[in-house]
Amino acid sequence: MKTAVAIIGAGPSGLLLGHLLRQAGVDCLIVERQAADYVLGRVRAGVLETVTTGLMERLGLDDRLQREGLVEEGFNLATDDRLIRIDVKALTGKHVTVYGQTELTRDLMAAAESRGLQVIYEAKDLVLHDVDGDEPFLTYHKDGVEQRIEADFIAGCDGYHGPSRKAIPAPKLRDYELAYPFGWLGILADVPPCHPELIYANTERGFALASMRSETRSRYYIQVPLTDRVENWSEDKLWDELALRFDPLSEHGVTRGPAIEMSIAPLRSYVCETMRHGRLFLAGDSAHIVPPTGAKGLNLAASDVHYLADALIAFHATGDESGLTGFEARALARIWKAERFSWYLTKLMHRFPTDGSFEHKMQAAELDYVGSSETMQRSIAENYVGLPI
Amino acid sequence: MKTAVAIIGAGPSGLLLGHLLRQAGVDCLIVERQAADYVLGRVRAGVLETVTTGLMERLGLDDRLQREGLVEEGFNLATDDRLIRIDVKALTGKHVTVYGQTELTRDLMAAAESRGLQVIYEAKDLVLHDVDGDEPFLTYHKDGVEQRIEADFIAGCDGYHGPSRKAIPAPKLRDYELAYPFGWLGILADVPPCHPELIYANTERGFALASMRSETRSRYYIQVPLTDRVENWSEDKLWDELALRFDPLSEHGVTRGPAIEMSIAPLRSYVCETMRHGRLFLAGDSAHIVPPTGAKGLNLAASDVHYLADALIAFHATGDESGLTGFEARALARIWKAERFSWYLTKLMHRFPTDGSFEHKMQAAELDYVGSSETMQRSIAENYVGLPI
Repeated sequence: MKTAVAIIGAGPSGLLLGHLLRQAGVDCLIVERQAADYVLGRVRAGVLETVTTGLMERLGLDDRLQREGLVEEGFNLATDDRLIRIDVKALTGKHVTVYGQTELTRDLMAAAESRGLQVIYEAKDLVLHDVDGDEPFLTYHKDGVEQRIEADFIAGCDGYHGPSRKAIPAPKLRDYELAYPFGWLGILADVPPCHPELIYANTERGFALASMRSETRSRYYIQVPLTDRVENWSEDKLWDELALRFDPLSEHGVTRGPAIEMSIAPLRSYVCETMRHGRLFLAGDSAHIVPPTGAKGLNLAASDVHYLADALIAFHATGDESGLTGFEARALARIWKAERFSWYLTKLMHRFPTDGSFEHKMQAAELDYVGSSETMQRSIAENYVGLPI
Repeated sequence: MKTAVAIIGAGPSGLLLGHLLRQAGVDCLIVERQAADYVLGRVRAGVLETVTTGLMERLGLDDRLQREGLVEEGFNLATDDRLIRIDVKALTGKHVTVYGQTELTRDLMAAAESRGLQVIYEAKDLVLHDVDGDEPFLTYHKDGVEQRIEADFIAGCDGYHGPSRKAIPAPKLRDYELAYPFGWLGILADVPPCHPELIYANTERGFALASMRSETRSRYYIQVPLTDRVENWSEDKLWDELALRFDPLSEHGVTRGPAIEMSIAPLRSYVCETMRHGRLFLAGDSAHIVPPTGAKGLNLAASDVHYLADALIAFHATGDESGLTGFEARALARIWKAERFSWYLTKLMHRFPTDGSFEHKMQAAELDYVGSSETMQRSIAENYVGLPI
């Protein structure tokens, strides 16, 4: 097979990119290691910036998102006894939309066939070849048979563990990483949220987050040591802990229900500054990871895709390479600022085992300052809704 | 001797407090361990917020400050190749005034006699007695003779190393401290400043600050390891280093001249939350230290004195104790926010030996965000001119 753009990965980055290219008449296809159901089974974030909802709108695939997404005009930072509402709408004129990443992926998958976007699932043993030459190609096994796709460009939308970034020779890679000394224990349950808007809390008992996917599905997290195991937690024990932290802060108090999912995830910041190598471009989690605090991961993938799609479309329309040449710098300028915000919010809201009493006081003073300064609230809000593209 | 308020320390805190009390007809006096010339010989900061210039105006002692002080409507944060001007005036409607702390102290000292403010210099071996009882008193030696002052209240304006804070029993002290892993090597010289406004620079060669006391007197600093010694630096070597950092950034380039003073000072954050013990009140450096980044030290002393003077004046006028009771909480709310800002700016502009490449990228991203966000510039500006009293 031959195509203009071979996209690796059928998560939201790859699907968004594929749809945008197809909409502009650029030949492309997607190869995905897993089955479609597996991709849809991954539980991920669900707070969308306008950069993300805007792409769905541009694609004309935002009907369900408009109908079912919750418009969130604010969120909260909290201490033990105080809720600081960040009035995002009043401060920025914008809002975010709560809509599960899984739902977004489902909408994009559902529209693929009718839009002529080919997605090859269960493509095993995928290997990238000659990405720094003029004739790159992919090989993989499908149903035990080796396949080959030749492409003008390859887009690596295959996440942190995918083969794309690993196809860049080590001496060409510049990357940066920070591992946080704790993880998030999360629970997903079909219960109404305890509060109409998200609450990020830094309490004496540690960090906790009350969030939701819809008006009937809640997502909660608490900070746990890296050594903790999900087996150490019963659902009851976790609900008890969540009630202790959120009952005093929230409008409705914590409603308990059986867990749909319960897991511990580590927190990490990672940026690969090499987002282009020859004819290979990286977008989304293959190039960067943010800690989930602030919900930037999916939105950052969307802005990468926005830049990359426009660059590829322009090149195919006119041969203009400036977008492709400028992609890395444009994407990284926004990525680093989002990394900064995720890191800032993570440091502000968590208890770090290495922090001393002075550092705890600095967290309290920062929260006190945020609570008293409309300017600082606006700074947080403008990052939360997403900095300009 | 008997007095209503015995003030320990004739630095700017003690002198401001003494003048404010005298102006309101409250009986007080100041005891100072050193001679007046020694106090005036200490080289200190020189960027005044309106809280500080406002007190001088309230006292009618701001003639020279108005005449000689430089109105600064902005300052700069810089990287190796970029100057980010924080347009303080446009962002906040306020400005700061460059006027050496030494000059302020000189003005306050000069006015003491005519205003009936008694200052006892060279009071040795000062001891505070019975501060948690109803009849506190001080003893000291003057010219070899023991003296005793009885007072209704004692104000500890005697700096970090003075006896006041140490008179609070250890179990009653709650204090917080952070020592930074570097110091500032400073040089004071009668040369015109390299730039019309301050430049805080975070360059590949480390932190540096270009500041001034007047249009003919410059004050420069660079970050040095704690193990460094001023003997390791010739004036030429330091000027070379400053030229490397500021010649590319500044309007005029660095002008060299003989050092009036050259020294290394460590950087520290410190807060004593116990600002009242019985009839003893702490104000200024006796209760808190900030790193010099952001020039908050003197201004924080001024706001402490503002709160304390008003509380003592109200008590003496009407017997209302609410100001005295509320002093600690009012002062600390502002202190912690200023500590936060000093710490933030210190962390943003210095190279920390423990920082890895990710943390360096976070500094760069923060500076990039500051450079691109008027909101974040306004946040920095509102802290720089001083948060509301």
